[in-house]
Amino acid sequence: MSDLPKRVHINEEGPREGFQIEPGPISTEDKIRLIDALSETGVEHIQIVSFVNPKRVPGMADAEAVARGIKVNPKVEYSALWFNERGLRQALAIPHLSVEGKITLQPSEAFLKSNLGRTPEEHLAKIHALIDQCKKEGVPVKRASIGTAFGCNFQGDIPVETVVRLTGEILDIAARHDLTIETVSLADTMAWATPESIRRGVGAVRERYPDLRVSLHLHDTRGMGIANAYAGLEMGVDTFDACVAGLGGCPFAAHKGAAGNVCTEDLVFMCEEMGIETGIDLEAMIEAARIAEEVVGHGVPGCVGKGGSLRAIRRKLNAAA
Amino acid sequence: MSDLPKRVHINEEGPREGFQIEPGPISTEDKIRLIDALSETGVEHIQIVSFVNPKRVPGMADAEAVARGIKVNPKVEYSALWFNERGLRQALAIPHLSVEGKITLQPSEAFLKSNLGRTPEEHLAKIHALIDQCKKEGVPVKRASIGTAFGCNFQGDIPVETVVRLTGEILDIAARHDLTIETVSLADTMAWATPESIRRGVGAVRERYPDLRVSLHLHDTRGMGIANAYAGLEMGVDTFDACVAGLGGCPFAAHKGAAGNVCTEDLVFMCEEMGIETGIDLEAMIEAARIAEEVVGHGVPGCVGKGGSLRAIRRKLNAAA
Repeated sequence: MSDLPKRVHINEEGPREGFQIEPGPISTEDKIRLIDALSETGVEHIQIVSFVNPKRVPGMADAEAVARGIKVNPKVEYSALWFNERGLRQALAIPHLSVEGKITLQPSEAFLKSNLGRTPEEHLAKIHALIDQCKKEGVPVKRASIGTAFGCNFQGDIPVETVVRLTGEILDIAARHDLTIETVSLADTMAWATPESIRRGVGAVRERYPDLRVSLHLHDTRGMGIANAYAGLEMGVDTFDACVAGLGGCPFAAHKGAAGNVCTEDLVFMCEEMGIETGIDLEAMIEAARIAEEVVGHGVPGCVGKGGSLRAIRRKLNAAA
Repeated sequence: MSDLPKRVHINEEGPREGFQIEPGPISTEDKIRLIDALSETGVEHIQIVSFVNPKRVPGMADAEAVARGIKVNPKVEYSALWFNERGLRQALAIPHLSVEGKITLQPSEAFLKSNLGRTPEEHLAKIHALIDQCKKEGVPVKRASIGTAFGCNFQGDIPVETVVRLTGEILDIAARHDLTIETVSLADTMAWATPESIRRGVGAVRERYPDLRVSLHLHDTRGMGIANAYAGLEMGVDTFDACVAGLGGCPFAAHKGAAGNVCTEDLVFMCEEMGIETGIDLEAMIEAARIAEEVVGHGVPGCVGKGGSLRAIRRKLNAAA
């Protein structure tokens, strides 16, 4: 019908996105319990912590203990988020973490300042320094990301041309360091995207850079998460970040109220029902969402965890027939 | 980009869908307060109550008082839901209600039994009797609906062919009574639809009956509501039922947990941001959602009410620039 992929790769970011914003406190044991449950769902990749300044993100103060405490499933790739040399060193110190560098550009100077406390020039200098550091440590840099790619609460609408231009800048930066970027993630950090702007943004980048894989990092703050994911699927996007139970949000995005990421089990449900493989066992992911809800101690935005899978209903109906 | 309509018609069903399922009790005054707020949003149509057996739907025991108590906005069409002659008479007794008959078929015998307590033959006999009654009273019958058109918790998957066949049966019934059906609503009563099944279902009906307007009645139980609406828009669907704040759900659908309808303000947000007119003032609808939350006394599923509109942010940024 459309250009839907046959197989979708989901990067589970619930622990990192969720624990960075939850008022908590959430015990280290509970964090590990959720990550261990996620490890058994069939998901290929879990971003488990971020190594950031605990003064700015108190929920990540125990990041090292969490990262060291998980029960490692060899089928899962575990990663951490980090933004500077200190964070890189912390990540490298954990043997079972897959450590990669990422080139992240921000179209919004205002967000760059509020989120990382940097001017664009300072940010660029940091990127070059970090790439040098990565090369020195033998850390691969194959991915890139454009934050607030569809709009920014501090800057307003982001034109498609800006996203295409930043993609070009990313490739230039990489070329100067003899690196090849395989994937660029368009992040709807502030939930400005609609299905049509996803189509336009992804379409423009794919048209200009057809060999680049485009992935999507979506937030559900305005209820567009799954619809935007569908629009991405229609454009052939096969890689998505998602958060179990719809945990998450950006602590610096100036949002009030619940503002989670696109929900993993809802995304898996949609893919599965549309015949797209994810490798994830939906019932196991629903169980992980139940644990997530227990761990954060309040209701979560995810829907399939409450509504249930259709597979379970079909099984019951078949058994009764 | 796709076959998106320029203008979308939204039938607000929050009061009817919401009050029929909320555990309550919600005072008659509060119900009226919400309906009056909705009347000022620019929405063209509000389904305000259902005239049903109060033993089966206690939340509708005060339906007549609610219907009589609202402040009528002459720009708004108000309607009620009813299923039998008694309900029809109750609706006709309220002068400001727009009363129309509707032919509703159910692909699922199991749901028909649990929802209306009828066999398919009994249901058909009731339809013929009601049409006769409508004609006698001068009540128009221009609309039809197919319930659980994408799947049913009691029956399982509903094949597209069944939906096309039922559409044909509806037109046959209408023809026998010299009626012309203008719109058939495909209802995802139990939230089985995905964007792809919406495309298939709508596409099949439109291909077979190109002159028929297809509308969608969507539930968000599994988080697909807005994505399904987008898929409908892509197929040229321009008429949707929706519920302020995402209120609603079917009391007989055997769902646990929150199970609302597609949320009006989220749908308006998506349309507005994609350049599709709704005639609805998003800020006023967000305010109505706030009242809805207050009236039901618990958190509601709608997102834009929490995340806020982008228009408000753009205005603030423009003022600061």
